[in-house]
Amino acid sequence: MERNLQASSAITRRKAEHIDICLQKDVAGRGIDSGWGNYRFVHKALPEIRFADISTATQFLGKPLQTPLLVSSMTGGTEEAWQLNRLLAEAAEAHGWALGLGSMRAALEHPETARTFCVRQWAPSIPILANLGAVQLNYGVSIDDCRQLVQMAEADGLVLHLNPMQEIFQPDGDTDFAGLLAKIEQLCRQLEVPVGVKEVGMGIDADTARQLADAGAAFIDTAGAGGTSWIRVEGYRSPEPVKRQAAEAFGDWGLSAADSLIQVRRALPAMTIAASGGIQNGVDAAKALALGANLSGTGRALLKAAAESEHKLDETMARFTFELKAAMFGIGAAALGELQATDRLIHRSD
Amino acid sequence: MERNLQASSAITRRKAEHIDICLQKDVAGRGIDSGWGNYRFVHKALPEIRFADISTATQFLGKPLQTPLLVSSMTGGTEEAWQLNRLLAEAAEAHGWALGLGSMRAALEHPETARTFCVRQWAPSIPILANLGAVQLNYGVSIDDCRQLVQMAEADGLVLHLNPMQEIFQPDGDTDFAGLLAKIEQLCRQLEVPVGVKEVGMGIDADTARQLADAGAAFIDTAGAGGTSWIRVEGYRSPEPVKRQAAEAFGDWGLSAADSLIQVRRALPAMTIAASGGIQNGVDAAKALALGANLSGTGRALLKAAAESEHKLDETMARFTFELKAAMFGIGAAALGELQATDRLIHRSD
Amino acid sequence: MERNLQASSAITRRKAEHIDICLQKDVAGRGIDSGWGNYRFVHKALPEIRFADISTATQFLGKPLQTPLLVSSMTGGTEEAWQLNRLLAEAAEAHGWALGLGSMRAALEHPETARTFCVRQWAPSIPILANLGAVQLNYGVSIDDCRQLVQMAEADGLVLHLNPMQEIFQPDGDTDFAGLLAKIEQLCRQLEVPVGVKEVGMGIDADTARQLADAGAAFIDTAGAGGTSWIRVEGYRSPEPVKRQAAEAFGDWGLSAADSLIQVRRALPAMTIAASGGIQNGVDAAKALALGANLSGTGRALLKAAAESEHKLDETMARFTFELKAAMFGIGAAALGELQATDRLIHRSD
Amino acid sequence: MERNLQASSAITRRKAEHIDICLQKDVAGRGIDSGWGNYRFVHKALPEIRFADISTATQFLGKPLQTPLLVSSMTGGTEEAWQLNRLLAEAAEAHGWALGLGSMRAALEHPETARTFCVRQWAPSIPILANLGAVQLNYGVSIDDCRQLVQMAEADGLVLHLNPMQEIFQPDGDTDFAGLLAKIEQLCRQLEVPVGVKEVGMGIDADTARQLADAGAAFIDTAGAGGTSWIRVEGYRSPEPVKRQAAEAFGDWGLSAADSLIQVRRALPAMTIAASGGIQNGVDAAKALALGANLSGTGRALLKAAAESEHKLDETMARFTFELKAAMFGIGAAALGELQATDRLIHRSD
Ligand SMILES: Cc1cc2nc3c(=O)[nH]c(=O)nc-3n(C[C@H](O)[C@@H](O)[C@H](O)COP(=O)(O)O)c2cc1C
Ligand SMILES: Cc1cc2nc3c(=O)[nH]c(=O)nc-3n(C[C@H](O)[C@@H](O)[C@H](O)COP(=O)(O)O)c2cc1C
Ligand SMILES: Cc1cc2nc3c(=O)[nH]c(=O)nc-3n(C[C@H](O)[C@@H](O)[C@H](O)COP(=O)(O)O)c2cc1C
Ligand SMILES: Cc1cc2nc3c(=O)[nH]c(=O)nc-3n(C[C@H](O)[C@@H](O)[C@H](O)COP(=O)(O)O)c2cc1C
Repeated sequence: MERNLQASSAITRRKAEHIDICLQKDVAGRGIDSGWGNYRFVHKALPEIRFADISTATQFLGKPLQTPLLVSSMTGGTEEAWQLNRLLAEAAEAHGWALGLGSMRAALEHPETARTFCVRQWAPSIPILANLGAVQLNYGVSIDDCRQLVQMAEADGLVLHLNPMQEIFQPDGDTDFAGLLAKIEQLCRQLEVPVGVKEVGMGIDADTARQLADAGAAFIDTAGAGGTSWIRVEGYRSPEPVKRQAAEAFGDWGLSAADSLIQVRRALPAMTIAASGGIQNGVDAAKALALGANLSGTGRALLKAAAESEHKLDETMARFTFELKAAMFGIGAAALGELQATDRLIHRSD
Repeated sequence: MERNLQASSAITRRKAEHIDICLQKDVAGRGIDSGWGNYRFVHKALPEIRFADISTATQFLGKPLQTPLLVSSMTGGTEEAWQLNRLLAEAAEAHGWALGLGSMRAALEHPETARTFCVRQWAPSIPILANLGAVQLNYGVSIDDCRQLVQMAEADGLVLHLNPMQEIFQPDGDTDFAGLLAKIEQLCRQLEVPVGVKEVGMGIDADTARQLADAGAAFIDTAGAGGTSWIRVEGYRSPEPVKRQAAEAFGDWGLSAADSLIQVRRALPAMTIAASGGIQNGVDAAKALALGANLSGTGRALLKAAAESEHKLDETMARFTFELKAAMFGIGAAALGELQATDRLIHRSD
Repeated sequence: MERNLQASSAITRRKAEHIDICLQKDVAGRGIDSGWGNYRFVHKALPEIRFADISTATQFLGKPLQTPLLVSSMTGGTEEAWQLNRLLAEAAEAHGWALGLGSMRAALEHPETARTFCVRQWAPSIPILANLGAVQLNYGVSIDDCRQLVQMAEADGLVLHLNPMQEIFQPDGDTDFAGLLAKIEQLCRQLEVPVGVKEVGMGIDADTARQLADAGAAFIDTAGAGGTSWIRVEGYRSPEPVKRQAAEAFGDWGLSAADSLIQVRRALPAMTIAASGGIQNGVDAAKALALGANLSGTGRALLKAAAESEHKLDETMARFTFELKAAMFGIGAAALGELQATDRLIHRSD
Repeated sequence: MERNLQASSAITRRKAEHIDICLQKDVAGRGIDSGWGNYRFVHKALPEIRFADISTATQFLGKPLQTPLLVSSMTGGTEEAWQLNRLLAEAAEAHGWALGLGSMRAALEHPETARTFCVRQWAPSIPILANLGAVQLNYGVSIDDCRQLVQMAEADGLVLHLNPMQEIFQPDGDTDFAGLLAKIEQLCRQLEVPVGVKEVGMGIDADTARQLADAGAAFIDTAGAGGTSWIRVEGYRSPEPVKRQAAEAFGDWGLSAADSLIQVRRALPAMTIAASGGIQNGVDAAKALALGANLSGTGRALLKAAAESEHKLDETMARFTFELKAAMFGIGAAALGELQATDRLIHRSD
């Protein structure tokens, strides 16, 4: 109990630091970029559609969505995080986006923080995702614990995050990643809701994606490099000079977000894929969808907006939606399926 | 009537703002360039011709032209625009260029502005093009209206512009582009003068060009990206923060001017093609001609010159002509046909 | 006579301006470079030779040369030019380089300037080249005139320069380049000494080189782009605003020095070729030799050194020679033939 | 004797200058880089190993090594150098790295400096390499002399360095590299300990590597370009203006460290190879190992750390080790052999 309380306060302190660093420091990867900029749409001067007719409707985890956009898993566990989660939930409901919650490990270890993840009341209709570090399955978290998290959040699914590089740069990180795949498989087979798997900004490659699909993952969020680098975030926080300095050498680590999406889609034509990592606007989102994603997730850009104001968050989500539709108009796609099947996305060098 | 007057004053206000923004702000696309710079001429040290013998004579819409250069469609509808149109007309006549007028919708909705498009008296011998947004065919403009515009301007042809992206970024833009192709076809079949089609800075791709050719377009002006970005222009003007911000994400939208020309020429070997978008000098124009254009059009660079002074405009046109001839001399081409057939234009990477 | 005097003073004024501009202004091509930097030598860690044994001896126009280096044709006609020619001649003799004189048209039109080209007394043993604009053959210069120039300079050969772009940018330039090839052929067939042909900084392409070889040219100096741009030099001098501005659009005109050499060598395996244009040091010279040149010429870099001091010129020539030998050592080449046959020069992208 | 003393003081002065310049000036090659940055690891989100289980153990010259890292040959001969050697030896012993000593020519010519190379007492268990310029075999150094150096240093092997470009830029350099290969072969055949061969920063190509293998070299240290440029170092020191200036033209001389490693490994699949040149951190080292190296060497970065403090040196070595393991974790490699056999290193352009 004692131990749990300490752990909990360590976790909440860490969470608060993460958010501060992400809001204030340069945490973008260095020497790598997301890769969305390598692609361009081929303009269609005669779209032959009405802008007003464009629909971005889709569905996720059995629920309808107005847009194929996702608030990436980010926060929870502290008072400030709770406020952010509430803002994000309200805005996601209003704009018809899906919502990911931040890692819920704190809620397990320190139950009084559980309420910071309970935002269903502000987002009654949209898909909500519970979240947990997959590595915790090696550190005592059971399938029942996971079940509890899903119920607590009234979530439609659970997403496990893979963050090996973050753990080794993090002070006292959980660095035993041995035999995780088998445990992920067990969880996927036994949990009542769909279980997805994501990275946290280093991307998932084709081989890993295939293993996850075989293990029963219901969806994959590629979470590729080019957006937030968690090695750099941990580098800023680290009390160990060696790790602080080493973080520099890993500034370009990871599969770029675009590359990760492309290889996972190629490997798994039928998988539900969310693409994320460095998606800054609706044109990037449109590119991700045209490259094969079912959903496009954004994290830090929304966090910054939410931290500024409710109004800014609303404006930012409205902007993403407008940009997505504008991109669809510009290639003459009236529905999401047409965007996803377009041959009007080309690599810059072609 | 009331409504028309309001519309008219809205149109004229918009036109005046467009010109101010184009003269004062950075409105060039970002992250895309015209592509002319990707091509180079292979110098011929022994041209075996006399510079004085070089001829750039051609013809357009049945009229002879001293040079294969075109003042791109730009303005009209206001007092200032009228002054500019007159300057451009006089200079075009003097230098033997073709002349495009700006969108004449104002003249339809508010007839007292019609005279601002009447410049035939200052340009008795050159081809003049009337201009209208194609999308207006979905908003009540009839074939008879078009006929009236041509007569009003004593024009040799009508050019319809396609500007879908501008319309969606423009406040209260006309964003219903459904079923336009059929209406363009009707117009082409029924109007007494040739009807051409152009973009306004995002380029026309091969498929669209083929559709337009089948619909009876007499000529195509590719108006590719890399010069003026109308999304950015509208972004500056927009009262809506979402659109202002979204304009940033579309800074690189569009087919580059060079790429557009190349694909349209490949698709339509016999079409009369004007190439435009970011043509800053006679060397760019020469490249466009060597890449398959019949005419090369320039907009903003001439607007700036005209806004400075009649003298500057004259100097600018003289410069374009000298540069075009100098480029021809440098590869040993004495006539336009030799420039157009040259194998002395190469891609930089070759 | 009157006319000649005026012409002469116009020529000498022009020559003085050329030198001033070349010494003081940025006259390098823009948007094009010489291309030498695209090549690299593959280092040989075990050269298996003595540095002291390296020989760069060769011969040109039947005379032995200590190094395969050439002072490019530059100047004459004025008092200052005479001083420079004398310095260049003494240094070339001392270091065993070949020497090109500047255009000798002044000496024909204004005979009292002839002595400014007479430097044989300071350079008794090396090959000296007389120089004339080929286009002058269209403006009254006869074969006998050429013969006179060679004798005046006690030259071992005559080199005609092709400068079409310079002439059209130059005020009152001689721009009739029609039918020159036939006249060059006559001259080559009838003059007693070898006649070479060079550009002045825009390069010679394979086709032109083949024509010149067929016409009897004894050697070709490619004089490619990337060094001095004569369009820019004339742009600085021009009283005509149109030409001043147009010079900007031609900043990247020309075949790069490396490309020109490569295509001429490929077209003419047995021709004597001097490579020049932007050769700044002995490594560039070594690259030119490894790419197929027999000689490597340098102009402006030597002019700058000579204008600074006799000592600086001596140092510069010593540096070129050391650098050439050091490059040879670094690939294990003890003689020029080994450098020219090396497979240790690669394109950077390979 | 007199002569030896003078030579010795010249050598020791030179050594001191080398270290000062390397610590204070920009001595990195210009226009060339090591090439490690052209490669990237493909992240494995599910490594399936424990970080704590990762082993980097290997062996070199018959001795076990904790890490496949090598302190490159650097110094000796002066009081300051002796201090540095001692620090490097202690740290190498503590971290389980191999240790190279600087050139021991001074110890031959001036025996009282021998003790500056005697660091075995502080590094009892690790492989130590004696070092000598191969060219000295052409200047009177015998096999017996070499035997003496090895004994003096209680070394496990001798490494000969090839430094032709350094010698020609160095005042009074030893520039007779003729017939060296045969002498190297004799030495390899007759010395009791293994003899390796290295460059000093210009790289070894495939042909030279094959010759050295045939001559009996026990290992090759590629020492490629992109790290310290000895031409630039000597350029700073040179009293001769010609050499100082010429050093600029050779700023990009040499085979990049990555290219050198790749070609030597391809040519000699079974050779023991140390890769060095511009290796700044453990990720670079991991790349070298994945590209085929058995060991990865670092020079200047360690010298700088040692010159700062013992603590800094310790931290730097700890950092290299952590970074190497972190890179292995990030691709799921638990042992060195897995890193060396990985297909998770790709060229950036792929
Ligand atoms: C402040 C912050 C906190 C995050 N926390 C979590 C987390 O708890 N669980 C998780 O799976 N991912 C977390 N992420 C990673 C995002 O979900 C990331 O995977 C996604 O790609 C967003 O990328 P972007 O920030 O570049 O848009 C966090 C990201 C940020 C910026
Ligand atoms: C101030 C301005 C006004 C314009 N107005 C029109 C117009 O009314 N109708 C039209 O078809 N194009 C219009 N254009 C677009 C030009 O005709 C454009 O298509 C052409 O490519 C010129 O490109 P450039 O400005 O890069 O030279 C306008 C351009 C400018 C700069
Ligand atoms: C000041 C100056 C004057 C020149 N005058 C002549 C000339 O009279 N005749 C000629 O054939 N080339 C002349 N050239 C051109 C050089 O010979 C040129 O062809 C050669 O490539 C040297 O290039 P670089 O200056 O880049 O080294 C001149 C060059 C310079 C810099
Ligand atoms: C200060 C200094 C002194 C050196 N002295 C020697 C030497 O005596 N013998 C030798 O073989 N290499 C010597 N080297 C070269 C290194 O061993 C070099 O080959 C290796 O690649 C290290 O590269 P880096 O400095 O880029 O890490 C020296 C390097 C430095 C920086």
